[in-house]
Amino acid sequence: MKALVFNNTLKLDKNYPIPELKDDEVLIKTIMTGICNTDYEITKGYMGYNGVLGHEFVGVVEKVGKNAPLELLSKRVVGEINLACNNCSYCHKGLQRHCPNRSTLGIFKKDGCFCEYFSLPYKNVIPISDNIDNITAVFTEPLAAAYEIIEQVHIKPDSKVAIVGDGKLGLCISLVFNALNINYTHVGKHPEKLQITKDLGAKVLLVEELSEKDNASFDIVVEATGSTSGFEKSASLVKPRGILVLKSTIAAKEGLNLSSIVVNEITIIGSRCGQFKPILELLKKGRIDVSPLVSGIYKVDDFESAFEKNQQKGTLKVLVEF
Amino acid sequence: MKALVFNNTLKLDKNYPIPELKDDEVLIKTIMTGICNTDYEITKGYMGYNGVLGHEFVGVVEKVGKNAPLELLSKRVVGEINLACNNCSYCHKGLQRHCPNRSTLGIFKKDGCFCEYFSLPYKNVIPISDNIDNITAVFTEPLAAAYEIIEQVHIKPDSKVAIVGDGKLGLCISLVFNALNINYTHVGKHPEKLQITKDLGAKVLLVEELSEKDNASFDIVVEATGSTSGFEKSASLVKPRGILVLKSTIAAKEGLNLSSIVVNEITIIGSRCGQFKPILELLKKGRIDVSPLVSGIYKVDDFESAFEKNQQKGTLKVLVEF
Repeated sequence: MKALVFNNTLKLDKNYPIPELKDDEVLIKTIMTGICNTDYEITKGYMGYNGVLGHEFVGVVEKVGKNAPLELLSKRVVGEINLACNNCSYCHKGLQRHCPNRSTLGIFKKDGCFCEYFSLPYKNVIPISDNIDNITAVFTEPLAAAYEIIEQVHIKPDSKVAIVGDGKLGLCISLVFNALNINYTHVGKHPEKLQITKDLGAKVLLVEELSEKDNASFDIVVEATGSTSGFEKSASLVKPRGILVLKSTIAAKEGLNLSSIVVNEITIIGSRCGQFKPILELLKKGRIDVSPLVSGIYKVDDFESAFEKNQQKGTLKVLVEF
Repeated sequence: MKALVFNNTLKLDKNYPIPELKDDEVLIKTIMTGICNTDYEITKGYMGYNGVLGHEFVGVVEKVGKNAPLELLSKRVVGEINLACNNCSYCHKGLQRHCPNRSTLGIFKKDGCFCEYFSLPYKNVIPISDNIDNITAVFTEPLAAAYEIIEQVHIKPDSKVAIVGDGKLGLCISLVFNALNINYTHVGKHPEKLQITKDLGAKVLLVEELSEKDNASFDIVVEATGSTSGFEKSASLVKPRGILVLKSTIAAKEGLNLSSIVVNEITIIGSRCGQFKPILELLKKGRIDVSPLVSGIYKVDDFESAFEKNQQKGTLKVLVEF
């Protein structure tokens, strides 16, 4: 089968073997996938991963393992990306996403979904409502990651909230916050990207429009920039004793000043993957329109071009159909 | 009067003017002061401060302003170091320590206590019990900063807790945790300093004794090292969804990797100054013995030597008596 494989270099392999199915797994025939910045970071060495890339998908269950429920067969599904042991203290608390024995689809010790057929434990797979189209379905994983903030932080009706960063991460958060009627300001560097938030009716601000009075003025700031300067800007906007949600993995090459975190006693909350159920409810209700975030849809044979497109300035979500 | 003044260089000035008293202030005759690492950092440019250094003291009220209560006169006192406006939303919530209009004794816009006489608003001043000796009283401020953790974080009887860093900050936290019957492990680099914690009956570990099994094994880790590597070590010890209390102001010159904070969804809580009342209760009850932390007591005329001593390897608290 065709598979986009990273093995020190990135290559579309046309003869990659179809995975053998374990008893608790299902085999998924890929319909459409999405490219995430994590995929790109892996090609730069993140997680030391080699294998098939990809963790955002919608597909159809083609085959079920011996212990997997038959009713999943032929269902259109999305899937949670962390493969947990279901046997440790985290799994027992429902925190499979933090299972220390986990592997992660296309990220850690488990071939991903950028291929024609891939496997997942049946427990990870969720059939989706007919009224969720394929493009929307591919956004389930990044939107769930945005929804995770709601699980971790109590955002009150009068909380003063900012999202900093207008890339696809920041925009996914914007779509979710809008769907949940959260009152927020979206801070970014790109008027054309912020326009997507503006069209939702939310307040936007270019970084250069921030003034002295915005300093230390937000109860909750969501950092979604992925850069050191974005982190420091986000921290500067948080009120004393306020909350900074850290959504992007930052490995500062330059120095990073944490003293304002201590002086203002700010709480930083790291936030990663989220549960699929609440976001699928929102999608089923039609509360989120992902179309402004789609920058291109490629065919599987053009996967390498799709990957290049993903790195171009101004690109939001690149999708690949099978 | 004699005053240790930082004005681009550090100098013991023997003719510094005694401050004029405002109506809501009291004039304090200094008995004893303590040198804090913040004092040293100021001499390296922190806060851009120029003036009399010092914020840890015990003294006697020598004079009261027109609007200050007469009964403070001749009382032996300690004092909270943040001078708030008492008029903003933070002050109204009892968070004078976060008043955006505040000045801070010996740190920001207010001459400090390394001098024979200094002034403070009467609201900042707290008379202390006769059974608290002068040496112990000088530790009120750093111990209150340690106690702040208890205000911010719910430490449960079965929480697995670590303090990382065995300098005076880490040891003050150790003294407070011990007084409050918290079960903790103290991680450090200096056997002779960790011995102070060991003598309290708590568990100690040298950094090099940490093993694979300690990774991601603590519910709550208090970072008290002041270094980038100490921060990263502390973060690595925190369980997924656990808490990292950031107690030391870190301005990383090198890079700093925050990705584990996101991946493990760790909550970082910045923690600075604390209230004096709870710690004064503990001191009155005789629950804390600060004597193992005293590395030297100098006379005011030797203030510069005391400051040099503070910078020597292995030094804990240096005190100066007037």
